[in-house]
Amino acid sequence: MGSQLIRIIACFGLICGGWTKKTQSVSTPNIVIMLMDDMGWGDLGVFGQPNKETTNLDMMASQGMLFPSFYTANPLCSPSRAALLTGRLPVRNGFYTTNGHARNAYTPQEIVGGISEDEILLPKLLKTKGYVSKIIGKWHLGHRPGYLPLKHGFDEWFGAPNCHFGPYNSSDRPNIPVYNNSEMIGRYYEEFVINRKTGESNLTQIYLEESLRFIQNQAMNHQPFFLYWAVDATHAPVYASKLFRGKSQRGLYGDAVMELDYSVGKILGHLVKLGIDKDTFVFFTSDNGAAVMSGPHQSGSNGPFLCGKETTFEGGMREPAIAWWPGRIPAGTVSQQLGSVMDLFTTSLSLAGLLPPDDRIIDGIDLTPTLLNNSLIDRPIFYYRGNEMMAVRVGLYKAHYWTWSNSWEEFNKGINFCPGEEVAGVTTHNQEEHTMQPLIFHLGRDPGEKYPISVQTKEYLVVLKHISAVVDEHKRKLVPGVPQLNMCDLAVMNWAPPGCEKLGKCLKAPKSDPWKCDWPH
Amino acid sequence: MGSQLIRIIACFGLICGGWTKKTQSVSTPNIVIMLMDDMGWGDLGVFGQPNKETTNLDMMASQGMLFPSFYTANPLCSPSRAALLTGRLPVRNGFYTTNGHARNAYTPQEIVGGISEDEILLPKLLKTKGYVSKIIGKWHLGHRPGYLPLKHGFDEWFGAPNCHFGPYNSSDRPNIPVYNNSEMIGRYYEEFVINRKTGESNLTQIYLEESLRFIQNQAMNHQPFFLYWAVDATHAPVYASKLFRGKSQRGLYGDAVMELDYSVGKILGHLVKLGIDKDTFVFFTSDNGAAVMSGPHQSGSNGPFLCGKETTFEGGMREPAIAWWPGRIPAGTVSQQLGSVMDLFTTSLSLAGLLPPDDRIIDGIDLTPTLLNNSLIDRPIFYYRGNEMMAVRVGLYKAHYWTWSNSWEEFNKGINFCPGEEVAGVTTHNQEEHTMQPLIFHLGRDPGEKYPISVQTKEYLVVLKHISAVVDEHKRKLVPGVPQLNMCDLAVMNWAPPGCEKLGKCLKAPKSDPWKCDWPH
Repeated sequence: MGSQLIRIIACFGLICGGWTKKTQSVSTPNIVIMLMDDMGWGDLGVFGQPNKETTNLDMMASQGMLFPSFYTANPLCSPSRAALLTGRLPVRNGFYTTNGHARNAYTPQEIVGGISEDEILLPKLLKTKGYVSKIIGKWHLGHRPGYLPLKHGFDEWFGAPNCHFGPYNSSDRPNIPVYNNSEMIGRYYEEFVINRKTGESNLTQIYLEESLRFIQNQAMNHQPFFLYWAVDATHAPVYASKLFRGKSQRGLYGDAVMELDYSVGKILGHLVKLGIDKDTFVFFTSDNGAAVMSGPHQSGSNGPFLCGKETTFEGGMREPAIAWWPGRIPAGTVSQQLGSVMDLFTTSLSLAGLLPPDDRIIDGIDLTPTLLNNSLIDRPIFYYRGNEMMAVRVGLYKAHYWTWSNSWEEFNKGINFCPGEEVAGVTTHNQEEHTMQPLIFHLGRDPGEKYPISVQTKEYLVVLKHISAVVDEHKRKLVPGVPQLNMCDLAVMNWAPPGCEKLGKCLKAPKSDPWKCDWPH
Repeated sequence: MGSQLIRIIACFGLICGGWTKKTQSVSTPNIVIMLMDDMGWGDLGVFGQPNKETTNLDMMASQGMLFPSFYTANPLCSPSRAALLTGRLPVRNGFYTTNGHARNAYTPQEIVGGISEDEILLPKLLKTKGYVSKIIGKWHLGHRPGYLPLKHGFDEWFGAPNCHFGPYNSSDRPNIPVYNNSEMIGRYYEEFVINRKTGESNLTQIYLEESLRFIQNQAMNHQPFFLYWAVDATHAPVYASKLFRGKSQRGLYGDAVMELDYSVGKILGHLVKLGIDKDTFVFFTSDNGAAVMSGPHQSGSNGPFLCGKETTFEGGMREPAIAWWPGRIPAGTVSQQLGSVMDLFTTSLSLAGLLPPDDRIIDGIDLTPTLLNNSLIDRPIFYYRGNEMMAVRVGLYKAHYWTWSNSWEEFNKGINFCPGEEVAGVTTHNQEEHTMQPLIFHLGRDPGEKYPISVQTKEYLVVLKHISAVVDEHKRKLVPGVPQLNMCDLAVMNWAPPGCEKLGKCLKAPKSDPWKCDWPH
C-alpha cells in the first residue's frame, strides 16, 4: 500500500497539479468531516497534550477556528455518529435503548437494529445540490444490508460497519468485514491485518490514500463533495503503521494519534495543492471522550475534564474541534460557542444552501454565523445516556439531574470509567437521581466538575431557575424515537455480507434466536 | 495609578520612542524573568486551559519556545524562589527544614531564617558584567534586614518580603510591608489595598507600571538589566484590578490571570517599542503548581497532572514555561528539554558571558543550546519535599521513592491536596516509603501518574536500573546545607521594618521567644 500511496502523491504534486485551478462555485463548498474515534479533548497539542506531538492539527487550528466547548451528542460511538449524520439527538433518531434506565448502547455485530429508514441523513440531502458523498472508515449505524451507508445517501464507502474488535474466528463470531462501496472486500485480521501483539496495521494509511484519491477525483470532475473521514486508529485495539510505531512519546496510542495528525496534514495539504482549499470546509472532531477505562496503552486524554467515554461528565462528551476554511474562517481564532456534532448536519446543509427538514425536530444549529463572523449563539447542550437526560449545559453552568459512572458490580471487577478521579457524590456507582435538586457546576472556574455549587447560595437558585426553564421546554417537546438498540441476535452477525460469494468468504449463520441486549452501563 | 500608567505609556509611544535605537551589545542581553505565584501548568490557553483567555502569553509562545516539561525545584514558594536565584536545590541552599521528615517549609513572617550569606544570588554575579537588577513583587527569601534583596545583589526592589496574606492587625501580627528599595513605603491592606470581599486590588497594575518604568530607564541608559518580575496576583487571596474583575470566564482567579497576561503583553510590547526586544531574553514561568486545595475561586489548574502545590506529583512541580527572544530563539517552537527554574540561574549567567561559581554544586544547567538550537540535554529532575528526595524524573520515566499528599489528620479536616483525584497507593495520606521498590510511571503515556508500571515487567527492571544509578550519583554528592527554615519567633515579624519611622508606622515587637516551627505537611 505504501508505495502505491507514494505514487499517487507524486502524481498529485508533479503531473496532475493545476488541473483544478478553475474553482467550483463557493456557494456549494466541499465538506470534509474528520471524525476521530475515542480521541479525547486533551489529545491535541493545541488542547494541552503535554508532549505536543500533533503539529498538523495545531497548524490547522492556527489557520482556522478552535472550539474549546464542542460536544458530542452521546458518550458512545454509534449514537454519536447517528446524531452527527441526522442532526438529531439519539433519543429522537432511535439510537438508544430502553432495556434499562440510562444505559449506553451501540451496534456490536449481534445488534438487530440500525439507522431507521425514517431518518434523513446528511449525504442524502446534499445530493440534491449535486454533492458526491463518500464515507471512509467506520460506519457504525447498523451492519445489516438495509442499514449500510449506500442505502442512506452515501455514494461511496471504504471501511467497516462495526468496530475493529477481534480477532474473532469463523465459527462463533466472524471477523468484521471491510467494504468497498456495497460489497465486502475482506475482513479485519484476515485481508486487513491488525497485529494485536505489536499494534501494527496499515489501515490509517489505506484510509488516507482513499481520501486523497476521492478528493482528487472530485476535484478533477469539478463536482462538490462530502467526505466523511471516520478513521478509527485511536479506538482500542489502537493501531499504527510501521512508520509511526514507536514514534511518539506516548506509546502506541500516541503513535496512532501522530499518524492521524500526519494524515490530516496530508489531506489539508492536498486541498491546497489542488487549489480547492478555499472551496472546502473542513471540520475535525471526535465521536466521544477518551476511553480512559482502557488504560494508558490503549486510550487518550480528556485533559482537565472528569472521567471519559461512557459517562456524561465533561470527559465523556467534550471533544477536540477545529474548523478550517482558508479565506472564509478567520485564522487563529478561538470560539466560545457551545457546539455539537449535530451542528455539523445543519451547518453543512447551510453551507450547501439547504435548509434542514422541517417535519421533525433538528437539534443541530447552523454555526455559519460563528464560523464566518465569530458570532455567539445561545443554546443548551444536553447530555444523554440512553433514554435519560443526565445533564444539561446552559452558558457556563452545567446541571446534573442524574449521576452515574458505572455500577459497583463492574467497578469491583476493576472496570473504572474515572481512573484516578473520584468526586464524592458526583462520580457515583449507583444511579443517583438529583432531579429535584440537580448538582450544578460552573464550568468556567471548575471545568473538572469537582466543586458543586452550594444549594444554599443565591447563585444556585438563579441558575437553577434559568436551567429549569430550558429543561422544561426540552422535555415538553421531546418525542422519543423507536429505540433501535434493544434486540440482539447471533444470526445477524457478519456471516455472509454482500460480496462474500466472490471472495469465497461466506459463513453459515446460526439460527435466529433474538434476545434483549444486555447493556450493563 | 491608572492614569499615571497611561501617561507613561503614551510618553513611551509618542515622544520617547526611538531613544534607544542604538542597541546595546547582544553579548550582554537584558534578562527578564517573569515568575508567577501558584499559577498552574494548565492555566494558559497554550497549555490547554479550556477558556483560552491568555492571548498575550499564547502569542508569546507563538513567537518563542514552549517548554511542556519545565519544573520548579520545590512545590512551595520560598524554596522554589531560593533555588531559582541560586541555581541550587533547596536542600543545598538551606531553604528547607529538618523539623520533620519530608515537610514543606517557607518564610511566613515568624520565620527566623532566610537566604544564607554563603549563597551567591544571580543579580550579584550579573553585576560583574554591568547589569542593573531589580526585583518587582514578592521576595520570600527572608524578611529580616540581612536577608532582603538589596543585601543580596539587587539594586532595586519594589514589593514585599512575604505573602500578602491578611489583613492582620497591629497588635498580634502586623500587615506585610511593601518596600521601595531598602525602605518600607506602606503595608498591605493599609496603604496597599486588597479588598478581601471583592478581590479588588491595583497591585498588578502597580507592578506593571514599575516594570515599564525600570525597563524604560535602563533602555535610556543603555545599561543591561535583569528584571525579576515576581508578581503574586494568582496566590490566595487572589486579586485583580477593577478593569479585570469579572472579565474572565473563570471567576476571580481567571481575572487575575487575565490581568497578568495583559501585563506580559504590555511588557513585551514595551520592549518592542523601545527597540530592545532583540536584546532581551524573557522567560515566563511559575514558582509551583496551582494550589488546588484552595478551591476553584482561589486557585488555578494543573491541566492533566496529578494533585498540586505542596506535593511532588506532576501537578505540584511541572510549570508553564515560555522563552522569548525575537531573532535568537526560533519562533513557534516546542522544546522537549527537561528544564528547571534553577536553569534560569545558569542560563542567565551564560547569556551574560559568565560561568557559575565553581566552589559549589550548581543544579541548574545552561539551556542556551536548547534555546538557540533546540538541542536536547539529558538531565534528571529531582522532586524534593523538605529534606527528602521524594521522586526523580529521568527521560520520560519518573520514580517515586516516597509518596505523600497530606496527613489523614489534615485530610479529615477537609484539607485536600488532590481534590477529585485519588490514585490508590500513590496519593497516600501516610508517608509511604518505596525506596526499595519505587513506584515508576511513564510520563509520556501516563502524564497523570495514574498507572504505576508493574514491577514484574522487564520495562520496570530496565528503568529502575538506569534511574538507580542517577539517584546513587545524586545522593553520593549531596551535602545538605544548613537548614534555614527550622526556627520561628513572633519577635521577628514585620513590626518595625526599615523606613517605618518616616511613616510613623513602627510597631513594638514582643519579646523574643523562638520555637521550632511546626510544618504540618
